[in-house]
Amino acid sequence: MRKVRYGGDYNPEQWPDAVWDRDHELFDLARIDTLTVGVFVWALTNPAEGVYDFAVLDRIVERAAAEGRSVCLATGTGAHPPWLARAYPEVTRTDFEGRRHRFGQRHNSCPSSPAFQRLSAELARRVAQRYAGSPAVVAWHVGNEYGGACYCDLCGEAFRAWLRQRYTTLDALNAAWYTTFWSHRFTDWAQIEPPSALTEHWRGPDHTAFQGITLDYLRFMSDAMLANFRAEKAAIRAHSGLPVTTNLMGMYRPIDYHRWADDLDFASWDNYPPDDTSQARMALAHDLMRGLKGGQPFWLMEQTPSCTASRDVNPLKRPGLLRLWSWQAVAHGADAVLYFQMRASRGACEKYHGAVIGHGDRSDTRVFREVADLGAELERLGDATLGARTPARVALLFDWDSWWVLEISDGPNRLVRYLDVVLAYHRALWDAGADLDVVPVTADLTGYDVVVAPALHMVKGDLATRLEAVAARGGSVLTTFLSGRVDVDDLAFPSDVPGPLAPLMGIRVDEWDARPPDVVNPVRLGSSTVESRLIFELVVPDGAEVVGTYGADFYAGTPAVTRHAFGAGHGWYVGAGLDGAGVAWVVRRVLARHDLLGPYADLADVETTVRVDPAGRRIRFVLNHRTGPVEIPVHAGGVDLLTDTRFHGGQTVKVDPYGVLVVAEDR
Amino acid sequence: MRKVRYGGDYNPEQWPDAVWDRDHELFDLARIDTLTVGVFVWALTNPAEGVYDFAVLDRIVERAAAEGRSVCLATGTGAHPPWLARAYPEVTRTDFEGRRHRFGQRHNSCPSSPAFQRLSAELARRVAQRYAGSPAVVAWHVGNEYGGACYCDLCGEAFRAWLRQRYTTLDALNAAWYTTFWSHRFTDWAQIEPPSALTEHWRGPDHTAFQGITLDYLRFMSDAMLANFRAEKAAIRAHSGLPVTTNLMGMYRPIDYHRWADDLDFASWDNYPPDDTSQARMALAHDLMRGLKGGQPFWLMEQTPSCTASRDVNPLKRPGLLRLWSWQAVAHGADAVLYFQMRASRGACEKYHGAVIGHGDRSDTRVFREVADLGAELERLGDATLGARTPARVALLFDWDSWWVLEISDGPNRLVRYLDVVLAYHRALWDAGADLDVVPVTADLTGYDVVVAPALHMVKGDLATRLEAVAARGGSVLTTFLSGRVDVDDLAFPSDVPGPLAPLMGIRVDEWDARPPDVVNPVRLGSSTVESRLIFELVVPDGAEVVGTYGADFYAGTPAVTRHAFGAGHGWYVGAGLDGAGVAWVVRRVLARHDLLGPYADLADVETTVRVDPAGRRIRFVLNHRTGPVEIPVHAGGVDLLTDTRFHGGQTVKVDPYGVLVVAEDR
Amino acid sequence: MRKVRYGGDYNPEQWPDAVWDRDHELFDLARIDTLTVGVFVWALTNPAEGVYDFAVLDRIVERAAAEGRSVCLATGTGAHPPWLARAYPEVTRTDFEGRRHRFGQRHNSCPSSPAFQRLSAELARRVAQRYAGSPAVVAWHVGNEYGGACYCDLCGEAFRAWLRQRYTTLDALNAAWYTTFWSHRFTDWAQIEPPSALTEHWRGPDHTAFQGITLDYLRFMSDAMLANFRAEKAAIRAHSGLPVTTNLMGMYRPIDYHRWADDLDFASWDNYPPDDTSQARMALAHDLMRGLKGGQPFWLMEQTPSCTASRDVNPLKRPGLLRLWSWQAVAHGADAVLYFQMRASRGACEKYHGAVIGHGDRSDTRVFREVADLGAELERLGDATLGARTPARVALLFDWDSWWVLEISDGPNRLVRYLDVVLAYHRALWDAGADLDVVPVTADLTGYDVVVAPALHMVKGDLATRLEAVAARGGSVLTTFLSGRVDVDDLAFPSDVPGPLAPLMGIRVDEWDARPPDVVNPVRLGSSTVESRLIFELVVPDGAEVVGTYGADFYAGTPAVTRHAFGAGHGWYVGAGLDGAGVAWVVRRVLARHDLLGPYADLADVETTVRVDPAGRRIRFVLNHRTGPVEIPVHAGGVDLLTDTRFHGGQTVKVDPYGVLVVAEDR
Repeated sequence: MRKVRYGGDYNPEQWPDAVWDRDHELFDLARIDTLTVGVFVWALTNPAEGVYDFAVLDRIVERAAAEGRSVCLATGTGAHPPWLARAYPEVTRTDFEGRRHRFGQRHNSCPSSPAFQRLSAELARRVAQRYAGSPAVVAWHVGNEYGGACYCDLCGEAFRAWLRQRYTTLDALNAAWYTTFWSHRFTDWAQIEPPSALTEHWRGPDHTAFQGITLDYLRFMSDAMLANFRAEKAAIRAHSGLPVTTNLMGMYRPIDYHRWADDLDFASWDNYPPDDTSQARMALAHDLMRGLKGGQPFWLMEQTPSCTASRDVNPLKRPGLLRLWSWQAVAHGADAVLYFQMRASRGACEKYHGAVIGHGDRSDTRVFREVADLGAELERLGDATLGARTPARVALLFDWDSWWVLEISDGPNRLVRYLDVVLAYHRALWDAGADLDVVPVTADLTGYDVVVAPALHMVKGDLATRLEAVAARGGSVLTTFLSGRVDVDDLAFPSDVPGPLAPLMGIRVDEWDARPPDVVNPVRLGSSTVESRLIFELVVPDGAEVVGTYGADFYAGTPAVTRHAFGAGHGWYVGAGLDGAGVAWVVRRVLARHDLLGPYADLADVETTVRVDPAGRRIRFVLNHRTGPVEIPVHAGGVDLLTDTRFHGGQTVKVDPYGVLVVAEDR
Repeated sequence: MRKVRYGGDYNPEQWPDAVWDRDHELFDLARIDTLTVGVFVWALTNPAEGVYDFAVLDRIVERAAAEGRSVCLATGTGAHPPWLARAYPEVTRTDFEGRRHRFGQRHNSCPSSPAFQRLSAELARRVAQRYAGSPAVVAWHVGNEYGGACYCDLCGEAFRAWLRQRYTTLDALNAAWYTTFWSHRFTDWAQIEPPSALTEHWRGPDHTAFQGITLDYLRFMSDAMLANFRAEKAAIRAHSGLPVTTNLMGMYRPIDYHRWADDLDFASWDNYPPDDTSQARMALAHDLMRGLKGGQPFWLMEQTPSCTASRDVNPLKRPGLLRLWSWQAVAHGADAVLYFQMRASRGACEKYHGAVIGHGDRSDTRVFREVADLGAELERLGDATLGARTPARVALLFDWDSWWVLEISDGPNRLVRYLDVVLAYHRALWDAGADLDVVPVTADLTGYDVVVAPALHMVKGDLATRLEAVAARGGSVLTTFLSGRVDVDDLAFPSDVPGPLAPLMGIRVDEWDARPPDVVNPVRLGSSTVESRLIFELVVPDGAEVVGTYGADFYAGTPAVTRHAFGAGHGWYVGAGLDGAGVAWVVRRVLARHDLLGPYADLADVETTVRVDPAGRRIRFVLNHRTGPVEIPVHAGGVDLLTDTRFHGGQTVKVDPYGVLVVAEDR
Repeated sequence: MRKVRYGGDYNPEQWPDAVWDRDHELFDLARIDTLTVGVFVWALTNPAEGVYDFAVLDRIVERAAAEGRSVCLATGTGAHPPWLARAYPEVTRTDFEGRRHRFGQRHNSCPSSPAFQRLSAELARRVAQRYAGSPAVVAWHVGNEYGGACYCDLCGEAFRAWLRQRYTTLDALNAAWYTTFWSHRFTDWAQIEPPSALTEHWRGPDHTAFQGITLDYLRFMSDAMLANFRAEKAAIRAHSGLPVTTNLMGMYRPIDYHRWADDLDFASWDNYPPDDTSQARMALAHDLMRGLKGGQPFWLMEQTPSCTASRDVNPLKRPGLLRLWSWQAVAHGADAVLYFQMRASRGACEKYHGAVIGHGDRSDTRVFREVADLGAELERLGDATLGARTPARVALLFDWDSWWVLEISDGPNRLVRYLDVVLAYHRALWDAGADLDVVPVTADLTGYDVVVAPALHMVKGDLATRLEAVAARGGSVLTTFLSGRVDVDDLAFPSDVPGPLAPLMGIRVDEWDARPPDVVNPVRLGSSTVESRLIFELVVPDGAEVVGTYGADFYAGTPAVTRHAFGAGHGWYVGAGLDGAGVAWVVRRVLARHDLLGPYADLADVETTVRVDPAGRRIRFVLNHRTGPVEIPVHAGGVDLLTDTRFHGGQTVKVDPYGVLVVAEDR
């Protein structure tokens, strides 16, 4: 049956066979159809160098097949086994402090280690070869939650090779890194060390003497792990044409997922929101993940059914949130809803992480009941949403390079964090109910009416030109403080701020103030006064009209927000660190001009998205994130696929607390 | 004269002989009868390998003997000398961060270092041989404040040997550590590394990927230092039958003193409370120390007469506290009251630590006067309390394994600290004035009416059965949230929570909520409403009656506290992180049933304890911890041994601020 | 033209030649006459071992000469080049944690490295040889902002050599370090290791087991860097008699500038105040720097024209502050006012640090205009202040040894910081408008009426005698809590506190209390009540009269402040951590007795200083640090050199916000 996949991580190698029967019995009760298997089985399948033993994995996969369940099969290389670290000590990582680690933890392999590269690819090859023909296997899962970094000498060597590839000559590298400053001019490639606490850094990974080398190391490390992924994928591809993925982590700074996107057959990610008021943040993450593959549906690869264990304080998911948040994933493009984990471990650091089946092995717990109810609901939905796409006219630019360079810069204000700025602008868009794509700066922007680019610190390639084109044809481009500052090498543009964005924005910025968070500068926007904090750019209009002005300090009365008519459209510039109300004021004005405010823009925490199925049918999701019910007017007539209730346009409907509507709208 | 010993640490090797005369002159004034000598004299007595020079120590001991004072003689191995570190670099420790230290500090010896093991035992042997016949020497003091940890390769080797002993096979070890999780299955003992920042840990010693290895390393390290102690004790025993001790530190997490207890001839400990409102905490520590040797009197080996130096802020002990707290020690079982230090050092990190004799060498300071007054008072007391025992009917279980596993666990809430929970339940018992034993989980429980087991995370051996027996014969057993979770290997019980305690408690716990400290859930207890924080277990009664219920969140109205009739007694379960009022409410109900509330249970900060001397006489201590006076009814007629005042039962007596009564009650 | 030098750090090696023309064009506009050149050019001038290439530097210096600007020429050794670290790995530092660094950062050379010593001196020699004859060069600038520390084995070896020099015998060293405590008696010099996280320290550089070794290492490291400076200076001196300096950093703890003073031909320093209310703190720093060379004028070598980049939050200098603070430097003795930096870097960690010329290359920015206006003003001033001296009758003792030992001590209160105490007493003196010298404890005190010695923890040499002499002849000596505690070796005086200061102060201190900052003890001073915090010494008068008493705690009513008649003068002792009001109360009483209150003592934030030019003319500076105007009576008739306005004594003058008067007073 074609439907949204439902299931999760399943590690029966941890418990006796007798329990497997009970597992599948409970899976039937909960309508579990898909199991992610083998994520940490390297020590099991490859217990010594050259020795491979798939007996247990065979039985797991065969049993799944026999039960009619699909398997997302992992290569198992997310953690290497003890024998490998013992035989090849260089396989462990060297941390930012310069300490060579010994065996332990997971995500523990140096990406540049020849032993890891060779043996992980070989394991992937054997797994693919053995299970390519299994009727259960539907996808391949490489590694696990790639991340972290290594600073060992092997990585140093690989970094230098990467640099030679990028710069060809040391002169080019010296120019890009601005090494003349502080006498760092390299005269031999061998002089270049990974930037760490032992070399360029102090006070941690964000404080570097030379941004250039640190930026390139971030790029290199992202590429180095991508190379690991590619090697395993290539090994799989030799035996199987099934899609290959790895579980990403949303807004995860260490890896530039946009550099990875082409290599993923489909995107998948693990959703562990920081708290139970993260609805907007999760929406952003879903959209970012969907944006990796141009809008193609993704898998929600992991979420907890109840609680996490890794945080200092791990609250319980309130009743109903498991369902609501699962539907939110679908609303944003997920074609699979999976849990970590199907059954709780008895030992080690995840034994208190929530699971579909707990240590008590019960089906009569609240959590199991909610899981089973959602299973039934997804079964009812069937294939209605599979392959559907989001028809967005608003693009939010998300840029790892800007994230990195903004946060490794010295000055003006380290309390300005890239993600905070993006979250603030996204929150305003989300509140307004605009269907949204989150895209890289290289994306085709021709389909969008509105492009929002918060804290676009780096402007590279032809981006400025493409943004101008959006405005020229009548669109709106919105950017903020600390945008247009540096080029692809993190060199300040030798011109007025905001560099190549200046013509579009019609302003310049000669100076900027920064203050700790307790200092507020009120900003006047129309008849409203909002607050601004942290960063206050002194904006000099050069064609732009003044939309908002500062209310305090020596620059009181000068512009804080401007709008510049450019072609048939506008360039908006926000020079101040506005609060939520201020950002909302600006964003809603921009959206309103293009008639892009959503139908429930005035109902806080009532989320709505649209997906269009391959046949062109519009499916509108309505998600009530409130703890109380809400009455809404139906936007367009249709049928609620969860209840088969028919609505007509304009009808008032009550949505329960944490309630969900999935309305297939009439054509 | 038989009396409570009085004196302290004395290091005259630091100053010229002329000062020694003055020392003893002042000791006479203060009635000092016991000196702890030689704690840090390794460099003096063994100035080079194979060279021993006892000339100075001889003179110190001989002088003490000549002055009629007793000596507690140290082996001097608490810090090794520079030549040892130079000759045997492996004698220094490798810290949690993996850094091999060089010479410095104290408590600096790797417990697994053969050089340390050989040369410390040899020094102990020579000290014992030389001074066994001294008339002054009354006890041996091995090392000093054992603690810390080492992570070097020698410890790694010793750890593996310890593991072989414990598990025999790698299969057993892999099962205990649950190594299948994250692919850690060990196939060779040599693959096992000490768990540190370089292997299994992140964010410090409490965050481990594998609780099993970390728990075992804590046990191993405690045992490794115990082996050091044993080796020195054995070397002493070859020459002397006098009692051997080492100074412990109360609730000190790194060492499981219960594993050490059998090897101590008597317990002794150093009392440095964190602040001047630590009266209950000190009472707990005294009882824990007394509990090590089954109630046998202990020595208060160190306390400051005035201030510490090692804290960031070192407040002065208020006038009278020195006396009050010394009597508190006696009230809880001390047969010795000793100071650190008799005379202040002129240099290094303890030069500002308080001393009986300061740099000014005066006898007319407030501190000296208080010391001398107490000396006179103890002399008056004579032998009245020597050997007396505490007649407790309440047992508080204290368990290092539970302490460790609770705090190294991931989830549910790292802000729940074992000691906080124990302190909260102890505080309620102390406030209620119940005479109390603090005992290990292996203790014989047949003599107790009430057993309180806060946060008993690990349940091992036949403990559940023995607790059931307490209830079965009419007693009360009280336990809390996060109890009964794991077995001896820190594996979650594959059954309902609270595992083996479930039958006694008559409940089960399917899920639990955790919240930061600003989130309060009110709990209704009888007609009271108290607050709960941090941890909220959702308790499902299975025979138990509901005593308290939650007042908020989706589990409002469900049980937070239950009582289960079991045999002739009860099992009490507290699922919520109750505040002090809540804990007191529960604890007092339990005590009341057994008529165990003390006579001054309603007078805050008026402490009372009873000791029964070898002849059966009851001595009641009354300690007024208030800064103002208090009027109390005399519990039973008798004579105040400090003033020879006679009281009759029921008479009202005024106790001064910080005042003390020591009433030998009439038979 | 003789005038106050004006300009700053200029690094044109970072940008193309075309920009140089624009640089000098803008310099002309701003009246820039002095450029600091070559601070980080080692990699440029010495691109490989044995290879020297001065082509670029030649052009920079020649161009400056051609433009008529002076050059302060750096040796360029503040950062070593990559090839050096590659060829001589020992040239990098080993940090406090024991980690050998690799190439990166700046100030990165081990001061004990033979390669650094040899090659830095050789570079200095070649630079001096080549440019000694340049008409532009007016001074030599060695290294840059010396500081930090190294803990490598080479430094260990050098430390031991330094110790042999200091102590001759190990017995003397063992006595000084009090090694008997904790068994640290050294029997071979080779046993001594640098005190670090791997040896004597825990919780960072201020927590040491042995203060003696840590104090000596601080002294040694300061001397080791001084030796580097001396070596470069000697190499320069072989070719040039021009003055040699290095840029210091005001109150910078790691280096004892008083040990350096003799070797500097003139003092210069970099002024980066922590915030925009640092006027008093900057005044202290200026006076401290001027005090290095006995009152000789100094150079303000660096200040930012707008903002820093290295702080977490980098606020913009408000309009007018650049001018006001520059004049403050002149008011305190500066004969040069220089910026970092003339033009902003495009890359690396200072690209957002403020500059006279920004990335936009404009002369029409606010900042450039302010710079140019000040340039014009300094030109108008001409040579009026050159060589003028401050006629102070008040001395503030500043002592790096006391700073170090106070802050590395265990007990009584680590929250008492030396600089906070000094700043509090300086602030009171500054508020009162007293002309002030900040001098070392070895200074000649015969010219002063008042000597203030806050937190003079260490008393060494004949200081106590010289302080007694001040009082004996009618002067006032003021000292505080935690003074007179230790001798030159940090050994507590074996006598009553405050040791050798006791006779002068007429008191003794037997005990002291310490409390966290939320605990306040009110102190009664005359009819005022002020607050005290952190430290409360219990003062026993021994001849002194009681001036202030504690209001709370068990020592309520006992002395907190005393005054002792000594000869014709007084010894004042402040035993409590008084608040600002309390310190002001005491300080003003002391000053008043000597008629040393300034003319604007009652006008907050109106600063005034006097300089006396070589011809004996008094120049009074009035600096209004307020954000509003202030009306002041003119102290004495004269001419404002900035406006040529004539004032008569007593006339009321309005001074603008951030305004400045420079009045050449009539004779």
